[in-house]
Amino acid sequence: MKSEKISELTTKRLSIYLRCLQILDRNGIQTVSSRAMAEQFHLNSAQIRKDLAYFGEFGVRGVGYSVSHLAQHLTKILGLDSRHRLCICGAGNLGRALAEYGGFNSEGFQMVALFDTDAKKIGTTTRTGVPIYDIKKLKPIVVKENVDIAVVTVPSEVAQKVVDLLCAAGIKAILNFAPVHLRVNSGIKLQKVDLKVELENLSYYLSNPSVSAPANLPE
Amino acid sequence: MKSEKISELTTKRLSIYLRCLQILDRNGIQTVSSRAMAEQFHLNSAQIRKDLAYFGEFGVRGVGYSVSHLAQHLTKILGLDSRHRLCICGAGNLGRALAEYGGFNSEGFQMVALFDTDAKKIGTTTRTGVPIYDIKKLKPIVVKENVDIAVVTVPSEVAQKVVDLLCAAGIKAILNFAPVHLRVNSGIKLQKVDLKVELENLSYYLSNPSVSAPANLPE
Repeated sequence: MKSEKISELTTKRLSIYLRCLQILDRNGIQTVSSRAMAEQFHLNSAQIRKDLAYFGEFGVRGVGYSVSHLAQHLTKILGLDSRHRLCICGAGNLGRALAEYGGFNSEGFQMVALFDTDAKKIGTTTRTGVPIYDIKKLKPIVVKENVDIAVVTVPSEVAQKVVDLLCAAGIKAILNFAPVHLRVNSGIKLQKVDLKVELENLSYYLSNPSVSAPANLPE
Repeated sequence: MKSEKISELTTKRLSIYLRCLQILDRNGIQTVSSRAMAEQFHLNSAQIRKDLAYFGEFGVRGVGYSVSHLAQHLTKILGLDSRHRLCICGAGNLGRALAEYGGFNSEGFQMVALFDTDAKKIGTTTRTGVPIYDIKKLKPIVVKENVDIAVVTVPSEVAQKVVDLLCAAGIKAILNFAPVHLRVNSGIKLQKVDLKVELENLSYYLSNPSVSAPANLPE
């Protein structure tokens, strides 16, 4: 396993492949070739073979991949064989929307806490029953609830302060939605979701209609 | 201009460069080298030079780029010199959060309408004053308000129906947050934001702590 060569784009594609395999499995499909998978899900078959080759020999030439075995392998590679426990800092519209977002409450992930500074919100729960705590209690709750991934949806002005609190609480992986550059110590993975970049990419496409729609991450 | 070669990753980096240049401009910096820009904003200087070379000769060897000129060029390349008008379909927590999101209401973008089917929401406005319309009025409002980009935040079950309505209303660029694969006719750009993929990438990192944090899109 040549893990040192794996780029973020590769791991993101592995996520997509896993989702496709789960759909095939639900539909009773037992084996699939990279070509059939590529056709059904609008992927690139050479890319599939290359991405999977990083992690070993999964397929059988002329037969394809065992759907359930490959799904198990990808689940393990992505660290989804043990469940991650998430918290969200910032119980505004975005924080609440994410707390209820299907993808954040499915196999592999469980949303266990929100944090805020608003006395009106503290002590209540979201519609789906996730408790909202005072951000002053971040560290004890993170420790008690075994939270290992934090999502930051606070305003930009306070985002660095919140990230510092998360690092001090021992969190090693952070997904940041605040449109601001944040610093973390080495050994902590900070990933930013920049929604304006997505819009600007659409703007580029509208301004260059002669350019065929560039390839997205496979869906 | 070799626009046929431009990948989505390149245009996303151009967005990032533009943001960096705007910061430099606000700080009174008039020229910057790719190396200085890379150092200050944690980017890759060779990548900056390569990305910009697609669009012509901007820099002067030994001097660097004119901050304001390069910002103007990137603004034009990204189609941000004319303002885009956005609508959101789905006025739930996520739709409301995005309607108020800074990046969706800044230079280049203006949020002008939300659509929903909930009679309690129709006829009201968001906190920031964006009107919420009946989705039955999608086409006339899109035409009247000159909307050219739509954001989809409805539940997965109805997302395809809403995208079909948007296409019928003449929308050419769609940003989809529903965790489902959607079909559009050719000539329409559909971009998906898949937040679960982001989480799974963090999960991979947590499972492989020996792997140094893979490079994100430059922040």
